[in-house]
Amino acid sequence: MTRWEQLVKEQLPEAISVLQDYCRQPSISAQGIGILETVHILTELITKANGKYQLLNDCGGNPVVYAVFEPGPNGDPDKTILFYNHYDVQPPEPIEEWNYPPFGAEIHDEKMFARGVSDNKGDLIVRLQAISILQNNGGLPCRVKFLIEGEEEIGSPTLENVLQKHAGLFQADASIWEWSQKNKGEKIEIIMGVKGMCYLQLDCEGSELDIHSQYGSVLDNPAWRLIQALSSMRTVDNRISVEGFYDQIVPPAEELRQWSRDYPFDAQGVKEIFGLKRPLIVEEKNARDTFLFEPTMTVCGIESGYTGQGTKTILPKRSQAKLDCRLVPGQTPEDIASKIRAHLDKHGFDDIRVSVLSSLMPFRSDIHHPFAKTVITTAQRVYGDNHIALLPNFGGSGPMSLFGQYLGEEKPIVSIGCSWWGDQIHGPNESIRLADFEQAIRYMVELFISYEQAEASPSVSFE
Amino acid sequence: MTRWEQLVKEQLPEAISVLQDYCRQPSISAQGIGILETVHILTELITKANGKYQLLNDCGGNPVVYAVFEPGPNGDPDKTILFYNHYDVQPPEPIEEWNYPPFGAEIHDEKMFARGVSDNKGDLIVRLQAISILQNNGGLPCRVKFLIEGEEEIGSPTLENVLQKHAGLFQADASIWEWSQKNKGEKIEIIMGVKGMCYLQLDCEGSELDIHSQYGSVLDNPAWRLIQALSSMRTVDNRISVEGFYDQIVPPAEELRQWSRDYPFDAQGVKEIFGLKRPLIVEEKNARDTFLFEPTMTVCGIESGYTGQGTKTILPKRSQAKLDCRLVPGQTPEDIASKIRAHLDKHGFDDIRVSVLSSLMPFRSDIHHPFAKTVITTAQRVYGDNHIALLPNFGGSGPMSLFGQYLGEEKPIVSIGCSWWGDQIHGPNESIRLADFEQAIRYMVELFISYEQAEASPSVSFE
Repeated sequence: MTRWEQLVKEQLPEAISVLQDYCRQPSISAQGIGILETVHILTELITKANGKYQLLNDCGGNPVVYAVFEPGPNGDPDKTILFYNHYDVQPPEPIEEWNYPPFGAEIHDEKMFARGVSDNKGDLIVRLQAISILQNNGGLPCRVKFLIEGEEEIGSPTLENVLQKHAGLFQADASIWEWSQKNKGEKIEIIMGVKGMCYLQLDCEGSELDIHSQYGSVLDNPAWRLIQALSSMRTVDNRISVEGFYDQIVPPAEELRQWSRDYPFDAQGVKEIFGLKRPLIVEEKNARDTFLFEPTMTVCGIESGYTGQGTKTILPKRSQAKLDCRLVPGQTPEDIASKIRAHLDKHGFDDIRVSVLSSLMPFRSDIHHPFAKTVITTAQRVYGDNHIALLPNFGGSGPMSLFGQYLGEEKPIVSIGCSWWGDQIHGPNESIRLADFEQAIRYMVELFISYEQAEASPSVSFE
Repeated sequence: MTRWEQLVKEQLPEAISVLQDYCRQPSISAQGIGILETVHILTELITKANGKYQLLNDCGGNPVVYAVFEPGPNGDPDKTILFYNHYDVQPPEPIEEWNYPPFGAEIHDEKMFARGVSDNKGDLIVRLQAISILQNNGGLPCRVKFLIEGEEEIGSPTLENVLQKHAGLFQADASIWEWSQKNKGEKIEIIMGVKGMCYLQLDCEGSELDIHSQYGSVLDNPAWRLIQALSSMRTVDNRISVEGFYDQIVPPAEELRQWSRDYPFDAQGVKEIFGLKRPLIVEEKNARDTFLFEPTMTVCGIESGYTGQGTKTILPKRSQAKLDCRLVPGQTPEDIASKIRAHLDKHGFDDIRVSVLSSLMPFRSDIHHPFAKTVITTAQRVYGDNHIALLPNFGGSGPMSLFGQYLGEEKPIVSIGCSWWGDQIHGPNESIRLADFEQAIRYMVELFISYEQAEASPSVSFE
């Protein structure tokens, strides 16, 4: 056991306890719950790890927490790593499907169960814990900054203004993104990009009142209209049929397709973990490529009329749907929203109101930067040679593009973390495995050390 | 003012007070709320009007209240009228859209506001009040029976068994159905039939858990499937596209089309009362015929995934829709349900579960029966010659067909009542106008008297 491994193990009980306290505080941005209480906890954690913080609330929205930790006596003040995390979480609903309270942070079977523990309260505590260990054992090898926002789960609507206004504050040589996971094959994913997002709400109104359904043959029905409008946007073969939706996509380089070959899209595993009732909608041999490189159009929710027990014979007065499009390089949320608007107009659904609830550009880092090499070689040492998987981008989204834009596109942004693919992020019973949490702290400590050493030979490049 | 008019006016305050007490007791069959409490109120009202009651609860479901009132000393014990009413009401939701408490029975602007006051607690009190007045003034001219059920708003699932088992109890010479209304032109509708109903729930399951929406390009989505399945069942021009849906319809006789000419489908009025945002889906000149003689397929509700505030990026695990088909003579709920099942199977939606929540046959009385003449001539006297409208059937449904089947098809069933077309039955702010309530009591008293006299000359037939 290395010295660092030993130190991590000794401090693990405290790290777990800190994580429990953090997870027991709800912080639901979509519902405006617990935001300021959570910010207060963060400021205490930063102070306790000898950091300084600043609350950025001059751009509206939930406060962004900026933190900085100075290098130790032997550290290099000219080198800076910037971490991006978010303190907000998804709503816990449907609560009745949780086996344990979503804000209880209970430990069962070597896992901690809590909304947000995997996405991404666990990772923040991993990073702060690694910093504490280094502070107590010779100091940090470089300056460390954090940007911790509170609106990631609602599409980071304020982040761009904050970055624009405070870009100087966040200057760094490299960034480490919020989150990563071990996949089904227990390989830790190292991820260099994200998909974009265009999250829309579609609203249709038929009348001021719900109407007795005897009028169904003569009066228009906003439930039917929304169903027919949505149906016109996607074929039964699940091809998006909005005109021009795929036009702007920049096909991924062959190198990227090659690079993602270690990503095992294990259809059988996905079926088991989510309890799928239906086959995949693509051929399994194409699923990995589709998952990484194709855009999506997902109905996240739809509601109209009576949805309670039994029967109610009404013609609903209104209908609403939530539609999440994940975008790939070349696509922009503005263009996609406008194509959807044009499609609805063209097909006679000009009365359906389209509101953009969330917009994020897709982003991919330069995969040839030396920092990538450090991240990868350290992971090989901590996790084992054959236990890493390199991905050109997430299937998910995040505001990486804004960092690229305001901090300089040549700066690499790499996402690593403590999660596991079976953690059920965004769903009921979200959890992390405590063994992953411990290993991630060790990886983070060793990455700091390696970063210090690797920068001595900056000519080492990623092959 | 006639003697009866005077008596009705004198007793009106008491009638209103009785109706308020009755409406303040919720009786929501779809949610199982207040059933036995309501039955208790009914038994007290029947006893108070010198009637006898029997609770029929040997067939499961909510108790059916049977009541009988014997003729007075000058009445004819060989003549019987059977009333059909229901004591259950629709759910009051959405409660926030009521201006007054749905179970408050408050009076404002000469109207009483309460869930169920128009459909059809008001009518039961009209009938009991008319009986009381006659009991106190010489006695009833004939035997009067009531069948008051508690499951009409959920499609009367137990009624057929009750009628089958107790058919002898309900034998009568003529029946008066639950409800009628004054239309926009202030003409009282006299209605001789109902549409049938096939109310279905469609369920689609995709997985055991809600899934992060990043998987939208590779995993199937039960929200999309249900949307696409429903969309395949109805064209954007609102023509039902389930194969064979219209095949069994018996076209209405020209006499019936002629008969309904007094029914003013006032598109402008409908637009105003419901606050329609969209034009009718048929030409206005065809709206009356379509409303009376065409079947419907109405999405009464649909729900899947996240429908709260803001965004949640999930691929939902399940979806559900409620679908109400109103049927016309020739169609049967069994045949329609089976055609919808076949349609879904044929279009690749064999995984979508179809449950029949409610089934009712369409029904039309023989419009040439002498009892109809009595009902009409009395209405002409009470409401005025030009203030009646004859309808071959409701746009709505009810278990009339079961009465026809078990009590003999030749027995006429005529629907009359105290409502007004603007009462917003099934919606928020359901109400009745107190003037309509009073007039309906007088009509009911005079109909009893006319029935006694008319039967002396049974050869009078309806022209």
